Amino acid sequence: MKSVINTIYESKIEELKSKITTLSVPVQLTIVTVGDDPASKVYVRNKIRLFDELGLECNHLTLAEETTVQADLDALAANADHPILFQLPLPNGLTAPDLPADIDVDGFGSESLGQLVLGQNTVLPCTVQATIDIISAHCGEHNFAGLKVAVVGRSNIVGKPLAIELINRQSTVASFNSRSDLAAVDWNKYDVIVVATGAHGILDNSQFIEGQLIIDVGINRVDGKLVGDIKHHHGMVTAASITPVPGGVGRLTCLHVLGNAVKLIECSQG
Amino acid sequence: MKSVINTIYESKIEELKSKITTLSVPVQLTIVTVGDDPASKVYVRNKIRLFDELGLECNHLTLAEETTVQADLDALAANADHPILFQLPLPNGLTAPDLPADIDVDGFGSESLGQLVLGQNTVLPCTVQATIDIISAHCGEHNFAGLKVAVVGRSNIVGKPLAIELINRQSTVASFNSRSDLAAVDWNKYDVIVVATGAHGILDNSQFIEGQLIIDVGINRVDGKLVGDIKHHHGMVTAASITPVPGGVGRLTCLHVLGNAVKLIECSQG
Repeated sequence: MKSVINTIYESKIEELKSKITTLSVPVQLTIVTVGDDPASKVYVRNKIRLFDELGLECNHLTLAEETTVQADLDALAANADHPILFQLPLPNGLTAPDLPADIDVDGFGSESLGQLVLGQNTVLPCTVQATIDIISAHCGEHNFAGLKVAVVGRSNIVGKPLAIELINRQSTVASFNSRSDLAAVDWNKYDVIVVATGAHGILDNSQFIEGQLIIDVGINRVDGKLVGDIKHHHGMVTAASITPVPGGVGRLTCLHVLGNAVKLIECSQG
Repeated sequence: MKSVINTIYESKIEELKSKITTLSVPVQLTIVTVGDDPASKVYVRNKIRLFDELGLECNHLTLAEETTVQADLDALAANADHPILFQLPLPNGLTAPDLPADIDVDGFGSESLGQLVLGQNTVLPCTVQATIDIISAHCGEHNFAGLKVAVVGRSNIVGKPLAIELINRQSTVASFNSRSDLAAVDWNKYDVIVVATGAHGILDNSQFIEGQLIIDVGINRVDGKLVGDIKHHHGMVTAASITPVPGGVGRLTCLHVLGNAVKLIECSQG
């Protein structure tokens, strides 16, 4: 799968570079972080690096955990006139402001999500877009209709919007969550299984068969090592295609922060 | 199932009547119809009758098909200061305005739907609420988590928002559509099957077993008779509980137009 991810990455970045040259307004992004969650630091650094590589402006605001209140975040959102994101998780019960769709680069706000339900959205949440890219590359861009897809996890930022987008594309979608009886599921009948629970070992590579595409969205730290939600049994090789962690969905997700910023700016140009 | 529907209806209407007496603002609703689609006429008449019965104000605007343009509908929406709905289907390529959530009594607008994805909505689309009521009555209000529900159909007004609401309630949800291979599905493994396709005969009563709850949302006219999406084979009795058409989901749906108007007015009172 590593080579598939690389191919998608290379082709998307070329596409973006050429799109950027056609814009009459410069691409801008503001990233807001509060405190210093170590995982957030890595994610933000990767996003900034990508903008730097392409010579684009990424404005990173870091706010102190001790002094930041909800009103500070709300004011930043209210005054933003270009794409902005609030890096999750936020500490101290702070919540990301509900951004209007035209600057909501993460696609997490209620306006973006409502447009998604109606199939009228400009951007998808970045991880959802990355997952769609991988399914497109593996199963064919025009083969979503009738595709049998299991989505394990129902978060607002991955599982739920992914299920909605797949329903929009006429896939047959099964949505599972922590209350589902996963042991009783016949996983082999799905063409694609997307696992986005944040629980390492919730499924393992012995459960899948040749021809299946398994997309591992989880990023967990186990014994100091980054691993996905899927446990890879030592010495066991599966015939299914399973995306790696790290270097799988996450690599493409980062790219779509830029991709979404470009889409929003294209849209604002009309 | 008729008696279950009756019980739900009676209990909901009592609940509504007592809620209405606590409101400090009168319940108001505006229904806009364009042209004279015969099915729409029946639906609207039922809604108005219910408001009349309870002594409430329902303002029905009927616009001529020949002279109404999109700007007329948009102006009505922009000037509305209380719950309003545009009766579907609209003729001549007219579309229902995308209403703000606080007056969107049908719950079809992007703001209502975005809030639904985040679990922050005030109202559900009326047919979705009616379906949830029936599942609650049959399976237990607190038993949605882990319930295996199949939703056949992916319309913006029933199938898609129902799937989202069920995911919010931690059900295990399978979403099927016209591109799904329905003949290959093992229907017996679902606790609940909701059929909302508008295609009579897409499933039939021989496919279900004892203990299953089958909710037929379809309303189709076949040989001058109103029938659901599920074909009832002559002389065959099934052990599953199947909601009747007419007198099933539709009866409760009508009630929730009033229920949603009350919820929106409650909300606006703070």
